Amino acid sequence: MHMDNPPLEGVKVLDLTHVLAGPFATMILADLGAEIVKIEKPGVGDDSRTFGPFIKNESVYFMSLNRNKKSVTLNLKTEKGRNIFLKLVEKFDVVVENFRPGVMEKLGLGYDVLRRVNSSIIYVSCSGFGSYGPYANKPAYDIIIQGMGGIMSITGEPGRPPVRVGTSISDIVAGLFTAISIISALYKRNLTGEGCRIDVSMLDCQVAILENALARYLATGKVPEPLGSRHPSITPFEAFKTKNGYVIVAVGNNKLWKKFCEAIKKTELISDQRFKNNELRTKNYNSLKKILSKILAEKTTEEWIKIFEEKGIPCGPINTVDKLLNDPQIKARQMIVEIFKPKTGKIKAPASPIKFSNFEYRVRFPPPNLGEHTAEILKKFLSLTDQQIKKLREEKVI
Amino acid sequence: MHMDNPPLEGVKVLDLTHVLAGPFATMILADLGAEIVKIEKPGVGDDSRTFGPFIKNESVYFMSLNRNKKSVTLNLKTEKGRNIFLKLVEKFDVVVENFRPGVMEKLGLGYDVLRRVNSSIIYVSCSGFGSYGPYANKPAYDIIIQGMGGIMSITGEPGRPPVRVGTSISDIVAGLFTAISIISALYKRNLTGEGCRIDVSMLDCQVAILENALARYLATGKVPEPLGSRHPSITPFEAFKTKNGYVIVAVGNNKLWKKFCEAIKKTELISDQRFKNNELRTKNYNSLKKILSKILAEKTTEEWIKIFEEKGIPCGPINTVDKLLNDPQIKARQMIVEIFKPKTGKIKAPASPIKFSNFEYRVRFPPPNLGEHTAEILKKFLSLTDQQIKKLREEKVI
Repeated sequence: MHMDNPPLEGVKVLDLTHVLAGPFATMILADLGAEIVKIEKPGVGDDSRTFGPFIKNESVYFMSLNRNKKSVTLNLKTEKGRNIFLKLVEKFDVVVENFRPGVMEKLGLGYDVLRRVNSSIIYVSCSGFGSYGPYANKPAYDIIIQGMGGIMSITGEPGRPPVRVGTSISDIVAGLFTAISIISALYKRNLTGEGCRIDVSMLDCQVAILENALARYLATGKVPEPLGSRHPSITPFEAFKTKNGYVIVAVGNNKLWKKFCEAIKKTELISDQRFKNNELRTKNYNSLKKILSKILAEKTTEEWIKIFEEKGIPCGPINTVDKLLNDPQIKARQMIVEIFKPKTGKIKAPASPIKFSNFEYRVRFPPPNLGEHTAEILKKFLSLTDQQIKKLREEKVI
Repeated sequence: MHMDNPPLEGVKVLDLTHVLAGPFATMILADLGAEIVKIEKPGVGDDSRTFGPFIKNESVYFMSLNRNKKSVTLNLKTEKGRNIFLKLVEKFDVVVENFRPGVMEKLGLGYDVLRRVNSSIIYVSCSGFGSYGPYANKPAYDIIIQGMGGIMSITGEPGRPPVRVGTSISDIVAGLFTAISIISALYKRNLTGEGCRIDVSMLDCQVAILENALARYLATGKVPEPLGSRHPSITPFEAFKTKNGYVIVAVGNNKLWKKFCEAIKKTELISDQRFKNNELRTKNYNSLKKILSKILAEKTTEEWIKIFEEKGIPCGPINTVDKLLNDPQIKARQMIVEIFKPKTGKIKAPASPIKFSNFEYRVRFPPPNLGEHTAEILKKFLSLTDQQIKKLREEKVI
């Protein structure tokens, strides 16, 4: 592997985002080599700096989303603060924010102002519902978007209360689409010189990932419901309880069904008319589930996985987070990296999952202390002197 | 809004992917204007063409993932087929595939072969576990990756069986990271001329989105568990049963807690020592849940949403897929588009959730019939004649 420059080297991003969707998007850009300058409120910073749990008073939540970024404090409610921001906009490629719609305009820093300063700026907003439409000004949290966006209506056990996807999937997916939008706009700008405004809504992004559920409803008119861990149309394709946990099996066709019956030593099921093909197995799901649940409860997860793997039957465990960290595949792919911060020591975090042949991912620097890079950035981009920086600090502009 | 060229106009992608993760990635590129040439097995095509449900014998599953793409049939197991493929590689920017690792090498079409034909080709593999590591050759399905990747261990109700995220989130997230990787590589290539190989693993991508759960475990050593619909450290922040369904409330601070108690006409809770602040509300979750469940069951979801919205309390319904399609916000943002195909008539699908100021998204063409563009592409890129194409068809190369 040779180690060239990262794919987004040289890209400069002014990052006004906080908490999750925005910071997740800019962390992806940071991991790909962009220079991310996180603009934070003096004395306060990104709200997520106060979210527990903590290691030595440092929020692990914040740390897990802000490596490879620089932090600059800037009070955008002062005229001096806004002027400094506008001077930075002149020299940067991207401005990204995830305030509620209208906040940037109220600050006098809407797209129309920024484009006058830098006509090729790429300005990206990521919000709960987007910048227009009847809900634009409603407050949004991940769980509210999960509820409104359809995913909660199909996640959970049949007939039981709805459950939230255990990770903040609405924020995460919006962050991924935001990253895609920024890199595409950069690609285009390199060819045309042209900037643009981009509007990403968390709710829109949820709709965009419904795939199968939406397709099924459109074709059949039947409203999709939660199905526990099972597949809507393939059987057996779900998690079964074992002696010590669960095992997932994915029996996608008749050849695998035969092997599966052999593996569980129930070859009489192969010729059972109720289970002859996938359609019948799905139709007679309840009878089959009862039979299989009893058998699979007789051995441990590890025993079943060994048996199924020998037969080439797709299967796997349900890893808890602690097990995942020690999984040999995760280790082989170096998916958990160590981030060193003098104050906290080493902490672990997921690496970038994109492996390039011509760029080896690494954590270039740890999540920043609040305002850690204020002087560095103001000197580098605006040629301010120590004296000027000291004065701005006294005036609480930075 | 002025209508310029799409951001990825001119980008040419040879798309060997099938079913979900890969096609989702290339649909994102297609929506952004790239020319996607889907290479399919003659007579068979993408497996998902056979996945139900169907409208007039056309798979809605396939249709929901393959708009804006062209289909070319090509038998890569024949020498002529491989030669045509290599000639196309010379003229294209990106090759993307989601076979099991090793399949392309066995066909004689691994990265080392392709880069000799086109040194600036961007070659992207997306597979269950990636191209190396001890699990590289294991079969992977979304549910297996959800199980191994930790998300299932934190989704569901406490003490009840694990549930699958209702949409194939492992495929979807891998598709999003794959799209990000391709566009970043294109960005870099425009500056350096350099191609590369990219390796995306669905399992790696799952690890990358664990955020809060991983952070919590690393800080506390406590293994995260499923919590139904509730938030791990904010209360009340979950779905409650109403007279006719559910309502989600997100009471994130004490000011909102006071408003919430007023809204449900239980102002005595404000001064109740057990619920005085968020920490205590979370600690005394069970007592609070009992009280609130009783009250919230007394009105309908719509009544509660009206009451909470008047007070500025973040809240929302749990939309089923049918309701979502008629949601006014989704309509205002044109998130559901109509795709017209002569055979099936109009079908609906989610639009791209990325709204650019300088490019208006539209469905340029419907999901292709198998091999619909074979002749067009072979003429355009390889200048083949009708006669030559006819012969290739007879020889079952295309």
